[in-house]
Amino acid sequence: MEMDKRYEAGLQAMEELFSPEVRTGMEGMKKISPDLWEMIVSFGYGDLYSRNTLSHAQREVITLTTLITQGAFDQLRVHLQAALNVGLSKEEIIELIIHCAGYVGFPKAVQAMGIAGGVFKEMEVTR
Amino acid sequence: MEMDKRYEAGLQAMEELFSPEVRTGMEGMKKISPDLWEMIVSFGYGDLYSRNTLSHAQREVITLTTLITQGAFDQLRVHLQAALNVGLSKEEIIELIIHCAGYVGFPKAVQAMGIAGGVFKEMEVTR
Amino acid sequence: MEMDKRYEAGLQAMEELFSPEVRTGMEGMKKISPDLWEMIVSFGYGDLYSRNTLSHAQREVITLTTLITQGAFDQLRVHLQAALNVGLSKEEIIELIIHCAGYVGFPKAVQAMGIAGGVFKEMEVTR
Amino acid sequence: MEMDKRYEAGLQAMEELFSPEVRTGMEGMKKISPDLWEMIVSFGYGDLYSRNTLSHAQREVITLTTLITQGAFDQLRVHLQAALNVGLSKEEIIELIIHCAGYVGFPKAVQAMGIAGGVFKEMEVTR
Amino acid sequence: MEMDKRYEAGLQAMEELFSPEVRTGMEGMKKISPDLWEMIVSFGYGDLYSRNTLSHAQREVITLTTLITQGAFDQLRVHLQAALNVGLSKEEIIELIIHCAGYVGFPKAVQAMGIAGGVFKEMEVTR
Amino acid sequence: MEMDKRYEAGLQAMEELFSPEVRTGMEGMKKISPDLWEMIVSFGYGDLYSRNTLSHAQREVITLTTLITQGAFDQLRVHLQAALNVGLSKEEIIELIIHCAGYVGFPKAVQAMGIAGGVFKEMEVTR
Repeated sequence: MEMDKRYEAGLQAMEELFSPEVRTGMEGMKKISPDLWEMIVSFGYGDLYSRNTLSHAQREVITLTTLITQGAFDQLRVHLQAALNVGLSKEEIIELIIHCAGYVGFPKAVQAMGIAGGVFKEMEVTR
Repeated sequence: MEMDKRYEAGLQAMEELFSPEVRTGMEGMKKISPDLWEMIVSFGYGDLYSRNTLSHAQREVITLTTLITQGAFDQLRVHLQAALNVGLSKEEIIELIIHCAGYVGFPKAVQAMGIAGGVFKEMEVTR
Repeated sequence: MEMDKRYEAGLQAMEELFSPEVRTGMEGMKKISPDLWEMIVSFGYGDLYSRNTLSHAQREVITLTTLITQGAFDQLRVHLQAALNVGLSKEEIIELIIHCAGYVGFPKAVQAMGIAGGVFKEMEVTR
Repeated sequence: MEMDKRYEAGLQAMEELFSPEVRTGMEGMKKISPDLWEMIVSFGYGDLYSRNTLSHAQREVITLTTLITQGAFDQLRVHLQAALNVGLSKEEIIELIIHCAGYVGFPKAVQAMGIAGGVFKEMEVTR
Repeated sequence: MEMDKRYEAGLQAMEELFSPEVRTGMEGMKKISPDLWEMIVSFGYGDLYSRNTLSHAQREVITLTTLITQGAFDQLRVHLQAALNVGLSKEEIIELIIHCAGYVGFPKAVQAMGIAGGVFKEMEVTR
Repeated sequence: MEMDKRYEAGLQAMEELFSPEVRTGMEGMKKISPDLWEMIVSFGYGDLYSRNTLSHAQREVITLTTLITQGAFDQLRVHLQAALNVGLSKEEIIELIIHCAGYVGFPKAVQAMGIAGGVFKEMEVTR
């Protein structure tokens, strides 16, 4: 895939995952490092999220799990929103965090659930 | 759920996930610490894997991801086998590892893929 | 141990460890995920803290160490309070953090000591 | 090297790395734990930064990388300032973070770049 | 404390913790990096283990916990031996690992327990 | 940069970093996952190592540091060889590991130094 196509595929994946507000926030990276921005779009979303075999929802299961495991709670919020946007239910996300408790320990699971509770409230998720 | 029911539910989940050989190996824990063994079965497999909302296949996606992220490669082998046993395809597992590369970095993804390659060969997975 | 007994044992352990204010804060989890709350109480405090062989004070030494090592600083504050509540002295906690410096590196030790300083001040610990 | 010499060597290294404001902030540790403060100065800066073979700039490359990898973002800010103080350029720091993306994954790289952007702005770094 | 005293204090602490065989193995470091060896002895064992407030047994509780949490299983073996040497019982070590399961997740706890089982067998610990 | 150019740039960077034997070993990935192989070459070595601003030697300083910090010791060996191939001296590598001791703790530093000692011996590095 040529660069332009990779970048365009990345932008499209980001549109499917994130709200316009989130994407505008992410674009702040352009000013600090246009090169890292280009890699995020072309590699992160163009090369990875645009691939087949796994759906966006399945990819967000992986993304949420790795963020919780590595304690990357600042990035968790936007990916919780993305997970809901691409069709994961509130119940599935809660279940994912509970499953993680046994694998990463309760401290990280509890912190993740607190953040999820905030996101559910903001997005008025009642599913 | 009473203790006995939790333990029995755990044993049943383990039967669905692991081959008899793997389960026999795991039972070595009984001799070192019967209490930890009891918790693995009752909590790990009884409380977690026996819950609803997520299928065994979805749970193995979470488990594989957290093991790769935390570098727990000794446990990865049996859960790769379990993932195949509960219906994940070779392609989905490879795709999961590729997705992880962007989130945990290439060193852990490369190590995971090497281990997966070995498991696929042993189990003669050609799907 | 039956479920009700595990849950009750957990509540009792939590009463010995945490102030009423802290416990009220923790109960916020009930609204987000009653199931995770149940596991925290029954497994985390009922199955683990209520066991014999190690005292509550010894268990908090383990808990503080693992939280510092994994960088779970959001959970550190309440367990520093719990450690003081179950009889660890300010000097022992400071010593624990200093010992950790050699094993997890100075960045996490320094951050932990800063948080401990704040907790000591709030609780007016002069021991 | 005797204690006093180690401590003095540490103070001198800290003077080369950090602004007076940052050093005053760091000295808050003296009140919480004079012993940890002594180790930070004598071991961290006296034994490590005062050694030969690697320049201060090369040492900050190592320090920034390990802080990003372990997610120690609270300590990252002062070492980004130190890195600029001892001669690393804005471009080199950005490049370091981009290189890390492939080795620790994008979530930590993105968070580090956001913090770096803030530090560059505060210090009006235009190099 | 002067250098020579720090080094001597470190050697004495190591004698209390480790068997002659283990210490001979550790001294292999002298050939690769005499400077790191000096720091291990003077800082690791001289500055840290030789301090007061916590006993050697309490320090090994901290050390075992941090090694399990960070997955440093290669170092775990010698510190399990040290823990037994300075008076921790087999039961206390098993209990420590079980407590960790809730805080770091089952994969690392299971791996640690397997290693502990091997050490207990080698040292014929039946306490 | 188009795909072919990214891939070719990656292959060239790998030639500068690794011996033919190491590269042949790495190519085993082609059979397990041609797609991950393509990303390793095009993104890891094409996009990252082929950029300007930092030399190969500076990049290996970053790579060694992040591998030691995350405990990725299986990957450390080939990058220690690469570091020597692109001009880092034995002394600089030893110094890097010593610096890391203060930031990641002694257990990982000691393990890294042991591996480095083996690599130095194999490559008969006497610099």
